[in-house]
Amino acid sequence: MDPPDPFFEKDAWAQEAGIELMEVSAGRAKVRMRIAGWHKNSHGTVHGGAIFTLADTAFALASNSHGTPAAAINANISYVKAATGGTLYAEAAEFSLNPKIATYTVTVTDDAGEKIALFQGMVYRKTLKK
Amino acid sequence: MDPPDPFFEKDAWAQEAGIELMEVSAGRAKVRMRIAGWHKNSHGTVHGGAIFTLADTAFALASNSHGTPAAAINANISYVKAATGGTLYAEAAEFSLNPKIATYTVTVTDDAGEKIALFQGMVYRKTLKK
Amino acid sequence: MDPPDPFFEKDAWAQEAGIELMEVSAGRAKVRMRIAGWHKNSHGTVHGGAIFTLADTAFALASNSHGTPAAAINANISYVKAATGGTLYAEAAEFSLNPKIATYTVTVTDDAGEKIALFQGMVYRKTLKK
Amino acid sequence: MDPPDPFFEKDAWAQEAGIELMEVSAGRAKVRMRIAGWHKNSHGTVHGGAIFTLADTAFALASNSHGTPAAAINANISYVKAATGGTLYAEAAEFSLNPKIATYTVTVTDDAGEKIALFQGMVYRKTLKK
Repeated sequence: MDPPDPFFEKDAWAQEAGIELMEVSAGRAKVRMRIAGWHKNSHGTVHGGAIFTLADTAFALASNSHGTPAAAINANISYVKAATGGTLYAEAAEFSLNPKIATYTVTVTDDAGEKIALFQGMVYRKTLKK
Repeated sequence: MDPPDPFFEKDAWAQEAGIELMEVSAGRAKVRMRIAGWHKNSHGTVHGGAIFTLADTAFALASNSHGTPAAAINANISYVKAATGGTLYAEAAEFSLNPKIATYTVTVTDDAGEKIALFQGMVYRKTLKK
Repeated sequence: MDPPDPFFEKDAWAQEAGIELMEVSAGRAKVRMRIAGWHKNSHGTVHGGAIFTLADTAFALASNSHGTPAAAINANISYVKAATGGTLYAEAAEFSLNPKIATYTVTVTDDAGEKIALFQGMVYRKTLKK
Repeated sequence: MDPPDPFFEKDAWAQEAGIELMEVSAGRAKVRMRIAGWHKNSHGTVHGGAIFTLADTAFALASNSHGTPAAAINANISYVKAATGGTLYAEAAEFSLNPKIATYTVTVTDDAGEKIALFQGMVYRKTLKK
């Protein structure tokens, strides 16, 4: 991304996780995370919390893309394949946008395009700017 | 915890997040995380991915407490109050235990005992040891 | 219940499902459903939609118990044991209550007290009466 | 549908709800429900349990389309718009198919093509036939 996105730059936890922003536009976002040893769990696969963080970061970027501060109120994640390395990608799309509540889906995939996780999230939009 | 728990010691992402194990027993676990600046999001509150990681770590400890490797297949989290600092706690309890599938609830609270998030998770248990 | 609860009496789908109200108080509700052949699915067990309807009815009663109209925005259900007959019970409890968003848990059990399902739901509260 | 689908014909609760099968193929299904007064809740809108039943029926058809009995273990639903009448449609698509666990998404829409709900479900597949 050039120039850098100010919302993403201030996301300390996403930076800590090594997440990189690829694209952001109205209601959409794509991020990636190159897997390192410290992303893993006790089973030697990528930690559910790291995969969730990747998906959640795409969700936050997409839901905050309209200029209205959006706070996550619910998220559901289904893990469909263990990930062990390489780069993981999360792509968020807007399913619905209401004045106070909006809903997003995020798909997490690996380098081979294999599906790793499916995420569904809702936000509460703090101020109505119309 | 004394002696250290070997399952928890190998959880690299939980260590990265600064999570500390307080208690683990059959089907139960309690962990905590002292909030630092790098746990936060662009809104200045604790990142949903950090809160999820805390809950998910308690869930992993509780679900792997029986000696059967358990992999998360689904998790749902509801965020009910923004957290800004201090220490957060996650406590996991087993709701159901079947040979292949088990279900857990995790409650995340802050120093004042206020509820921060509610988490519900399912695991697939890889080997049946009976 | 004596006298009848007007909110429950107007719930046509709950009546259609044969649900009976047992108790309702601030933030809590308990309902039951005597299983008949028409509650079942193609596998001969109680349909996930019927179990969800039972849990959702308890959730609606509990979340509307404060006098503020509450509309469900999200629900998550984990099915932990197949049910085949007898009576099923759903008990809802309030996890959190904010001016606009509230969260509930519902446990579904059978006649033997065995856990059948775990439900977590969020509502959007339409009017703030304080 | 001509000829009738035997799996759907045996789904007593779906019949009770007035659901009609439109299409079913490997990993996919589409159903509809013409809204009547008895589908409604105390607020006069279509009951969350009725909308869930519609989505769940599409999910059951899609997940059982491979010949392996599939039992729902988890479902998450986000309600994005109140429905009041007309016909509702639910369309299920397979997100992932593993030997024991498979994941589906279901979108519920109304006559105008407006999104009503988003559903994400997981099944446990009872027998591996390969």
